[in-house]
Amino acid sequence: MNSEDRLIARLRELIESQGSRRKLCNGIGDDAAVWQPSRSHRSVITTDASVEGVHFRVDTMSMHDVGWRAMASNLSDLAAMGARPVLATVTLGLPADSDSESVFELYRGMLAVASAHGCVIAGGDIVRAPGWMTSIAAVGEVRPTHVKGRGGARRGDVLAVTGPLGGSRAGLHLADNGRVLTEDLAAQAQAAHCRPEPRVREGQFLAASAHVHAMMDISDGLSTDLARMCERSGLAATVDEVPVAECAASMAQTLGEDPQAYALAGGEDYELLVAVNARAFPYLNARFCKRFGRPLHAVGHMREGSGLFVRKGGREEPLAPTGWDHLG
Amino acid sequence: MNSEDRLIARLRELIESQGSRRKLCNGIGDDAAVWQPSRSHRSVITTDASVEGVHFRVDTMSMHDVGWRAMASNLSDLAAMGARPVLATVTLGLPADSDSESVFELYRGMLAVASAHGCVIAGGDIVRAPGWMTSIAAVGEVRPTHVKGRGGARRGDVLAVTGPLGGSRAGLHLADNGRVLTEDLAAQAQAAHCRPEPRVREGQFLAASAHVHAMMDISDGLSTDLARMCERSGLAATVDEVPVAECAASMAQTLGEDPQAYALAGGEDYELLVAVNARAFPYLNARFCKRFGRPLHAVGHMREGSGLFVRKGGREEPLAPTGWDHLG
Repeated sequence: MNSEDRLIARLRELIESQGSRRKLCNGIGDDAAVWQPSRSHRSVITTDASVEGVHFRVDTMSMHDVGWRAMASNLSDLAAMGARPVLATVTLGLPADSDSESVFELYRGMLAVASAHGCVIAGGDIVRAPGWMTSIAAVGEVRPTHVKGRGGARRGDVLAVTGPLGGSRAGLHLADNGRVLTEDLAAQAQAAHCRPEPRVREGQFLAASAHVHAMMDISDGLSTDLARMCERSGLAATVDEVPVAECAASMAQTLGEDPQAYALAGGEDYELLVAVNARAFPYLNARFCKRFGRPLHAVGHMREGSGLFVRKGGREEPLAPTGWDHLG
Repeated sequence: MNSEDRLIARLRELIESQGSRRKLCNGIGDDAAVWQPSRSHRSVITTDASVEGVHFRVDTMSMHDVGWRAMASNLSDLAAMGARPVLATVTLGLPADSDSESVFELYRGMLAVASAHGCVIAGGDIVRAPGWMTSIAAVGEVRPTHVKGRGGARRGDVLAVTGPLGGSRAGLHLADNGRVLTEDLAAQAQAAHCRPEPRVREGQFLAASAHVHAMMDISDGLSTDLARMCERSGLAATVDEVPVAECAASMAQTLGEDPQAYALAGGEDYELLVAVNARAFPYLNARFCKRFGRPLHAVGHMREGSGLFVRKGGREEPLAPTGWDHLG
């Protein structure tokens, strides 16, 4: 566990020692919490914050993109629960020198990705703060039978992701390594980093399949997030090969890094990670392809034990979580 | 309108121009947003943030109280909607020099007031930030027929509050004017400021009465919040006399201020303000007294026109909003 996970584990103990949790179907530890507004319905809530100087820089990113990313990361958590987005509330921290046009641009970015996925902004709070800050809570709905979570993966399950990884990391590195990519690849990296697409429809499709045993989004890097799925499922995982975004492969080469390692460590790609019954995987993948025009990528499998392993030249090596530790 | 209300009005236009709001029963402008998870149920969501150096100082307030206040202000918004609290999500911003014991104290404060009102913490996010910061979203449930909002006040309605005002402001002034109050009154002011009680049960009781036409909580001061109720209801209000907390009356005298004006301008009391059918008020108040062991305080009435007036020596004078403007 990294320092963020350790602190959260201790807070979870403290929180769960208090009060009745009657209405709650699951609590802290998944991408979102699930509760039961009425017997036949499940609602899902998630929250995600973004802080200037920590998660973004206003000198390298437009306010529109700051808003888009902030909303997209919340919608991605709903996607990971297989939920249909319903509404979001937005807390905005404004530095003393902020102008209202920047506030509107930020809202336009949030609204662009939210309304593309049927999510409305239902309320919020605006406060003075030392710098720009957003904290969004997003609510969705999911059928009781479609709730997956991170802890349901089974021995032998195929691990698959909904798209190539590392693109957002390449976008982050663009700022420091400007002209090392071709124009096309630079644009690809920029888009992956600034305007990630939450996999909302893909999440609902995958959640509807009984062969999908666990699901989460990859927000902190596959190595970090898969470790979380392993721990919650009480299993180990072996990674064979991950799909690397073209811009990420090119950036890794430029930086003299292994493209596989580069993509495994890259955060904020917002693809989904699923654990799928191995026998059902080819059929599910064919249906996924037909529906979305692109495949699921098998990256490895779940197995007995604990920890994360990567296959290199026929041998398995332990893989340390290399992704993002928010408090590290 | 103050600068915060103006910015929110413009954002509201922008937000409402986008997308279908099918599931939403009301949006921005009330204490919380209401949506419909299923035909027979209504859920309510609110969000409220608190920033070190803006809303609290860690040198004059314990982390326990910082947590209590942050959670109480959200529960108060649910109370204003007549809702039963269900769950909350918590975003925590931690400065680089924060220790985990402070995080736990802050959580203990949040949990103390949350669990007293049946609210569980269901999830959250922890981020690095320039200073301590909390952003909480709280969800509650309310019967479809019990939703009031701010805009339903009618001509002739009695305006009433659930308790004396100004106590929290006196607590704020304690820091600068240490020993001017007696020990008892200082403790009263300190409690009002640091551990306000959200009127959750009172809100549910009042929401259940068909004679209550509008309800909101007093978080920014009665003069500011009542002006919002007037505007949303398309009416004016006259204030006769407000109940002043004993500690606030004493602090106002010390500072050479009029106790009525002091209480009208005091924010963060978290009492509820209701507009009640005038003929039904005595009966409702008798039932309220019997249930809660203390009365509703009539402070004035709604009337034709626009704006806020205060009665002084038989004459009505216009009253400017003197409460808290978060962006002023």
